[in-house]
Amino acid sequence: MSKRAVFITIEGLEGSGKSSVIEFLENLLQRKKFSVKVFREPGSTRIGEKIRKILLDKKNKEITSHTELLLYLAARTQLIEEKLNAALSTYDFVICDRFFDSTLVYQGYAGGLGELVEAAVKLFSLGIKPDLTIVLDSCVEEGLKRIKNKDRIEKKPLDFHKKVRDGYLRLWKIYPARIRIVDARTNLEDICKKVEEILNRERYQAKK
Amino acid sequence: MSKRAVFITIEGLEGSGKSSVIEFLENLLQRKKFSVKVFREPGSTRIGEKIRKILLDKKNKEITSHTELLLYLAARTQLIEEKLNAALSTYDFVICDRFFDSTLVYQGYAGGLGELVEAAVKLFSLGIKPDLTIVLDSCVEEGLKRIKNKDRIEKKPLDFHKKVRDGYLRLWKIYPARIRIVDARTNLEDICKKVEEILNRERYQAKK
Repeated sequence: MSKRAVFITIEGLEGSGKSSVIEFLENLLQRKKFSVKVFREPGSTRIGEKIRKILLDKKNKEITSHTELLLYLAARTQLIEEKLNAALSTYDFVICDRFFDSTLVYQGYAGGLGELVEAAVKLFSLGIKPDLTIVLDSCVEEGLKRIKNKDRIEKKPLDFHKKVRDGYLRLWKIYPARIRIVDARTNLEDICKKVEEILNRERYQAKK
Repeated sequence: MSKRAVFITIEGLEGSGKSSVIEFLENLLQRKKFSVKVFREPGSTRIGEKIRKILLDKKNKEITSHTELLLYLAARTQLIEEKLNAALSTYDFVICDRFFDSTLVYQGYAGGLGELVEAAVKLFSLGIKPDLTIVLDSCVEEGLKRIKNKDRIEKKPLDFHKKVRDGYLRLWKIYPARIRIVDARTNLEDICKKVEEILNRERYQAKK
């Protein structure tokens, strides 16, 4: 099975509007007659959802930074081997709500594990790399305010989330060809317009 | 906190008698007035036991080899950071039912992930290494026969378990100073006598 899909990942802070943008993107691409598959991380597999529960349950305060990293990687390898590889050879577009950039930024840069995370991500991405990564750059405080029942990650201190934002901007400087930053501090309509412009610029206009 | 404990790991096939030997060892050392702490892998922490459930549940047939490896590592880092490090600086002896040799053998050698496992174990053992590892070398078929309600790992084919045995013997050849093989195909009394001889030879006779 060889890859045929364009693999797009959507990244950003909590409450930055990733879900709404993904819904827009899915509809936009389907209107253009592309087949689209959407996944979310961690999760989208039965095993991954069990891992997600452990990771996000706010009762699990004692999870160490290394364990957190390994659980995110475990959910990812399950997704890649059970579903993502197959989807990449079947659909025109595969969209993932978070992927390895989240790990680099949350567990690596903001979580303080730095180079260990880079090495581990390299070992366990199993050769999969997004073609395009859209980072929704939102206001840290505004995003957190939107969330009512915060999970274990969302409950981390404000400073952590500020580092996450900073981490995404650093990644963008390292991988400018793959990563696009979208200002997400405006309304959804504007954000979606910008996302559509990016897709048009990348020449994914319509099915050949 | 600096390490003061002697860290002993007990390894071996399913049904090789690890639990009985650990019970014997704990009693023996306590009679000699040593303080002893026993852990088991995967588990011995609240998070580790949740991970253990995912790993051993025979319904979770679709777990991929990479995910399996990462979940074992996640349970281990949680144990090390939450409890093992502290125990190593508090007790005279810390005994662990399985440790990283299980990962090298089950996921690496028998599971076919080889070098990736070695790299991952190196990254995520967080500087912890057993002082002494006792491998109970038992008969594959006999051991499996002893287990009534087999878990996901125990249910793997006979050939897998034969490779596990072979893997332990290979590890012993690589690390002869740390690893001791004990023939566990005899009765418990004989096995325990051999384990006691090893401890005596290692000069852990009595509390100074």
